[in-house]
Amino acid sequence: MSDAVELAKRLIACPSITPARGAVFDATEAMLRERGFTVDRFIAGEAPDGPVENLLAWRGEGGKHFAFAGHLDVVPPGEGWSGDPFGAEVKGGVLYGRGAVDMKGAIAAFIAALDRTEQKRGTISLILTGDEEGPAIFGTRALIDRMAQHDLKPDLCLVGEPTSVHRLGDTIKIGRRGSVNIWIEVPGTQGHVAYPHLADNPIPRLVRALAKIDAIVLDQGTDWFQPSNIEVTDLEVGNPATNVIPLRAKARLSIRFNDLHKGDDLAARIRDIVLAEAPNAIITPRVSGEAFLTEPGALSDLVAAAIRERTGIEPELSTSGGTSDARFLSKLCPVVEFGLPNATMHKLDEAVAIADLEALTAIYADIAQRALG
Amino acid sequence: MSDAVELAKRLIACPSITPARGAVFDATEAMLRERGFTVDRFIAGEAPDGPVENLLAWRGEGGKHFAFAGHLDVVPPGEGWSGDPFGAEVKGGVLYGRGAVDMKGAIAAFIAALDRTEQKRGTISLILTGDEEGPAIFGTRALIDRMAQHDLKPDLCLVGEPTSVHRLGDTIKIGRRGSVNIWIEVPGTQGHVAYPHLADNPIPRLVRALAKIDAIVLDQGTDWFQPSNIEVTDLEVGNPATNVIPLRAKARLSIRFNDLHKGDDLAARIRDIVLAEAPNAIITPRVSGEAFLTEPGALSDLVAAAIRERTGIEPELSTSGGTSDARFLSKLCPVVEFGLPNATMHKLDEAVAIADLEALTAIYADIAQRALG
Ligand SMILES: [Zn+2]
Ligand SMILES: [Zn+2]
Repeated sequence: MSDAVELAKRLIACPSITPARGAVFDATEAMLRERGFTVDRFIAGEAPDGPVENLLAWRGEGGKHFAFAGHLDVVPPGEGWSGDPFGAEVKGGVLYGRGAVDMKGAIAAFIAALDRTEQKRGTISLILTGDEEGPAIFGTRALIDRMAQHDLKPDLCLVGEPTSVHRLGDTIKIGRRGSVNIWIEVPGTQGHVAYPHLADNPIPRLVRALAKIDAIVLDQGTDWFQPSNIEVTDLEVGNPATNVIPLRAKARLSIRFNDLHKGDDLAARIRDIVLAEAPNAIITPRVSGEAFLTEPGALSDLVAAAIRERTGIEPELSTSGGTSDARFLSKLCPVVEFGLPNATMHKLDEAVAIADLEALTAIYADIAQRALG
Repeated sequence: MSDAVELAKRLIACPSITPARGAVFDATEAMLRERGFTVDRFIAGEAPDGPVENLLAWRGEGGKHFAFAGHLDVVPPGEGWSGDPFGAEVKGGVLYGRGAVDMKGAIAAFIAALDRTEQKRGTISLILTGDEEGPAIFGTRALIDRMAQHDLKPDLCLVGEPTSVHRLGDTIKIGRRGSVNIWIEVPGTQGHVAYPHLADNPIPRLVRALAKIDAIVLDQGTDWFQPSNIEVTDLEVGNPATNVIPLRAKARLSIRFNDLHKGDDLAARIRDIVLAEAPNAIITPRVSGEAFLTEPGALSDLVAAAIRERTGIEPELSTSGGTSDARFLSKLCPVVEFGLPNATMHKLDEAVAIADLEALTAIYADIAQRALG
């Protein structure tokens, strides 16, 4: 039996910069086989967004199926750490290292929690990818396909992302907004500003379209989501000559939207507005994720109860922030995200308090126990 | 006595790429001293827009003062000429070389015309700069100051720019539009698109200002000018990250305006519109020239009569095209521009027909004669 700190140190010591391969999976597989899990490791995808290593593990059969999902890859450490980013050093009650909170700490806590869970019946699974921080094309999506092949169907899923903000347990995520980026290019006819009738300036058409887009109010928010939001994130013409009417004008939009919308519908709406002003515009949307919501209910109650029991805190149910792999898992079953305080994630000297790691282990054990019924 | 072709060949043979210095001025000075002119050559200005060489020459005293203005510098020849750009070769009745039409041909024609002008009374002057194709800061403007020092005040001024379009004599310019460029920068607060309340996107403010600017109708044109025109010539944000709200947004405007406007007034109007939408915007105008008009009258009638006499063509009185040094000279006296067909100006294999050069010499002589009264 090992505790969460020891397991976390072993995972951090494998420098698994995204996309993660090999050693960090070897370590994880060993931990899970030791605890009686069946482990299926596999490689998915081709360049440029692959290949990606993934690990699916399960213990037990039938009954309630509780899944824990996460990622073994980490973002690059960057320059300027006080110590070795993969040294997994403990100082003053704090464990330092890339991935300490996002999210090797949480994976270690869940594996340690397994030792405190009495599994008389039901199924526990772990869904672990090596590519969440990268393109995420061949990670969790491939794991979901693999589960279907093994006929594994979770009833509830907990994602161990670092959702806590100020204190462990203050926030769990029950949904995330969707995201679509849209590239707009308006062609024109280049010419000299002294002879505007011989040219066709694309900028006014783009500007009129953007002014209309800026005036859109998508919604007022919902019970669980903040209002959907459109941002123009870039403009580009690239014309150095003061006396030249340019050949083309470009803009890029980012829309973060709640569950009142679908990415394709929003892209179509933007397309209509742009084409009304600039019939020859080229519009290229890319939906990186749809919004999802796990309505507050059995799963969020269960997680909140475990948090309250251990910490005395009533967690806030949030849908804010960027996208996560929970958007894929939400197609399988109710999904809630809960993990460590995220203050140092993706930063220099990423670190987790040992006390938080131990409390999280207890909470995860409680959640698993309650989930198995 | 030399004819215009011979003089033009001598000038073309001096490769006077802007800013012109030395040899081309030596050649011109010799031609003018030979013809009884007093010559004042001087250097004006400092880096980066100087030093610039200029030449002022005059013959006679008192009476009507007729001035001819032009430039001895040429634009770089560029790669791809059929022959030597400074070879001044004559082939098939055509003289080839950089500056053949813009505007060493016209200067040669005017000097040759002097030999056909009977100057019993009055004053003839030549106002020749080495920097019209460059920044033009220390060229014609410095010559105007120098004329004041010599107490020289022309009554009429002819600028020898290549104004003819299809045939020699079809177009003379009686004015030019003014020009102002305006740089706009709207600062914002950078942030993540998922947390728009923590950021402040500068793009919508810029876009709203540009939409309002685009809706401006400055005027409907005048008897002699086409409508004033505003073009947005550049947009720049420079944000490569799809999930980032950018720090700043920039645009650049070019306004070409007629004599109903002043550059500073237009800049102030744009400033007001931009500041109403974006109070923290930085607006940087640069007026490169005011509009000017020499109302059709004595001077244009005189030039038109000389053209009609020689070619049978009734010239169009135009104010179209870019700016020229006539904008400075118009502060002294009525100014008209008339010169060779401009089809090859600034192009490869720039060339003038010998017949046009000879016809222009006759027309210039007629104009000078009429101008002296
Ligand atoms: Zn993560
Ligand atoms: Zn010129």
